[in-house]
Amino acid sequence: MVIPSLIQHKRDGNAIAAEDWARLIADYTAGQVPDYQMSALLMAIVFRGLTPAELAALTDAMLTSGDRLDFGDFAVPRVDKHSTGGVGDKVSLLLAPMVASCGVAVPMMSGRGLGHTGGTVDKLESIPGFRTGLSLAEARAQVERIGCAMLGQTPEIAPADRRLYALRDVTGTVESIPLISASIMSKKLAEGLNGLVLDVKTGSGAFIPDPARALDLARTMIGLGEARGCPTVALLTAMDRPLGRACGHSLEVEEAMDGLQGSGPDDLMEVTYALGVEMLLLAGAASDAADARAQLESSVSSGRALETFGRVIEAQGGNRSVIEDPGILPQAGAVEVFRAPRSGVVAAVEPRRIGRAILELGGGRVTIEDEIDPSVGFVITVKPGDAVHAGDPVASVFARDDAGIAGGLTALAEAIVIGDHGRLTPLITHRITSRDVEAGVGVG
Amino acid sequence: MVIPSLIQHKRDGNAIAAEDWARLIADYTAGQVPDYQMSALLMAIVFRGLTPAELAALTDAMLTSGDRLDFGDFAVPRVDKHSTGGVGDKVSLLLAPMVASCGVAVPMMSGRGLGHTGGTVDKLESIPGFRTGLSLAEARAQVERIGCAMLGQTPEIAPADRRLYALRDVTGTVESIPLISASIMSKKLAEGLNGLVLDVKTGSGAFIPDPARALDLARTMIGLGEARGCPTVALLTAMDRPLGRACGHSLEVEEAMDGLQGSGPDDLMEVTYALGVEMLLLAGAASDAADARAQLESSVSSGRALETFGRVIEAQGGNRSVIEDPGILPQAGAVEVFRAPRSGVVAAVEPRRIGRAILELGGGRVTIEDEIDPSVGFVITVKPGDAVHAGDPVASVFARDDAGIAGGLTALAEAIVIGDHGRLTPLITHRITSRDVEAGVGVG
Repeated sequence: MVIPSLIQHKRDGNAIAAEDWARLIADYTAGQVPDYQMSALLMAIVFRGLTPAELAALTDAMLTSGDRLDFGDFAVPRVDKHSTGGVGDKVSLLLAPMVASCGVAVPMMSGRGLGHTGGTVDKLESIPGFRTGLSLAEARAQVERIGCAMLGQTPEIAPADRRLYALRDVTGTVESIPLISASIMSKKLAEGLNGLVLDVKTGSGAFIPDPARALDLARTMIGLGEARGCPTVALLTAMDRPLGRACGHSLEVEEAMDGLQGSGPDDLMEVTYALGVEMLLLAGAASDAADARAQLESSVSSGRALETFGRVIEAQGGNRSVIEDPGILPQAGAVEVFRAPRSGVVAAVEPRRIGRAILELGGGRVTIEDEIDPSVGFVITVKPGDAVHAGDPVASVFARDDAGIAGGLTALAEAIVIGDHGRLTPLITHRITSRDVEAGVGVG
Repeated sequence: MVIPSLIQHKRDGNAIAAEDWARLIADYTAGQVPDYQMSALLMAIVFRGLTPAELAALTDAMLTSGDRLDFGDFAVPRVDKHSTGGVGDKVSLLLAPMVASCGVAVPMMSGRGLGHTGGTVDKLESIPGFRTGLSLAEARAQVERIGCAMLGQTPEIAPADRRLYALRDVTGTVESIPLISASIMSKKLAEGLNGLVLDVKTGSGAFIPDPARALDLARTMIGLGEARGCPTVALLTAMDRPLGRACGHSLEVEEAMDGLQGSGPDDLMEVTYALGVEMLLLAGAASDAADARAQLESSVSSGRALETFGRVIEAQGGNRSVIEDPGILPQAGAVEVFRAPRSGVVAAVEPRRIGRAILELGGGRVTIEDEIDPSVGFVITVKPGDAVHAGDPVASVFARDDAGIAGGLTALAEAIVIGDHGRLTPLITHRITSRDVEAGVGVG
């Protein structure tokens, strides 16, 4: 295997053989292929793509670069959900305990935030004491005991992806559907799942804003999952505005707790229920979508989902009293209301601007080493299409100090566009399975 | 300047600003930009190309990364020739002394061979004692004294190109017209020239085989030269068969000496004269092409060109008796004649196969550190279109030993294709200036 020849081969639009992918990724993980060759190859992939066979070989090579969660003869079906990332997306915090309390195991492995999007692991760590760094053995034991574990990407899983992702991040090679698919699926397929649900975001705040490309990404990941014995379903959901009202770590945990107590914002609950329905169906734990939905609603109304979340928090070292008293979460030093500067209709609530503002407030990461302040963020109570009057309170800034408040108000003034017209785009636009694509399945 | 953003900008088809190119190349040369970012950018350039303004900025940045040959008030016009490389191309060995003996200074900086092509510097070093590693100061003094110096690329010239070329070589990013152009021109423009002639090879043995792309390469380099005050002219010449008869270092020096004594092969002499005519015209040393040609022919018939070559050899530490006695060049241990295996017409003499065979005989480099054996090679006396009879001697192998002879004969059997039809393509197909392209100017 001569690396420059492999690179040229891909550059010229040819396919690299499966055994060469296996060798290349093994050698790269072992530090025997220099980053400067890998980054040139990654850029060639950005332009040329990968054939289905190449994508399968690359994903398998990344998957086998590490260990897997092996549940042996544990009989309970296991499902997980993965979101391609957005602003205000705290769905995992509700969904994992809801599904687990319906009798389906959820070994949920999540990422940290980077750039304008937040990460589930960071949100969980705003709960005092919560430890996300479980080993695979700990995660397995916890899933078998209480039906759910919520952990970060362990060093044991897909180390090739860890190195490749860090390299892509600094070489302009993130935005590639096959590379994104291989990265996500090499980790998810290591979780020993019986089913996987993908929440593929579209719109201005998504990593892949264009719906046609998002659909392509969903289909690509579904193909990878299905071919490896993991039935996979995807929903395309709107990320042209933040999901729910809260954006920021403590604030989102608090909103998730509201949701588990039956008082979450409608859009957050709809996306959560829709994804949960798919998870229960994949697990064979519901007869149909209506049955699944009823089970999930009951898990909330009965308090079982909240109780499961409390057990997860406790098992992972966190202070479970947070489920009764969100006041124990880190609290912002200063809070200020933002009022509509004019009367009209909300034309846009721009998620990237909000995500960037959280970064500016100290609540995000530019590099993976950055410390984050979990207390800062925004609560935005309007959506596109809402009529407002000048002076109405439409959002709040949570900051460390007055300087943060000033910056946050400026960001809100830029992000919340009030005009004469506005319209809420549908929340869930497509349901994609290995067989078909249903458009317009969701709730607008 | 955020490097990942620059890479993404280029990847998405946008132009990088001139000041960013300057900063990027300066930082890269200083070791402050990692190779893995530069190689991703190079691959994006392979796909997206460079705008004329970007190419100019990159070339200038590479040029200013090092020193230049500064001839101060030296009044004699200076011209050089650059070939994009081929098999059997010993033109520089004849051309530099011929042009210099017509009163035009030739500060000729050449490269080493790599892959299937030979390099002028390696050929010169087959002359016992010949030293190509002149400093810029030595080269300047020698040009002012005897009108010609023949040196290798010094570390003082375009160090950015040295690093970039090494990186391109191992990352599949060599074959890019703007990158090739910037690499060549950043070195040639540092030579303090009044004119430059480019010999752009086309056909199966050329780095850019396709004539349309070769034309594009020629125009791109001409544009760069002209915009920087260096009038530049290019000839497109055939490299679908070796040039001349000799292929290999000692053998090519011997053939060059034949040429300087008036008995070189026709095709070699035609290309040499055609390039020389352009050099004299650019230098203002001839009234027209016919005058230039007459001067060059006279430089050979009078013995002045050979005498100039002798003076260059002597000045650079070589044994000048080589011009009377080529027997002092390293000689092969074994020689064998190759005979036509059948009667017919020569359909092809494949230059890449010959170049690879020289490598296999030990007369080439796979990596830049490899030692070469100057004695080995081939003399091939037939060209496509020649009629042959079975058993005719059509070539000779020069090798270290019998094993080499066997390999060389096999290579010749593969390279020299005898069929029922064959045709010699035109030797010089295009003359390209900044104003126009003349097709079919040359001699077939």
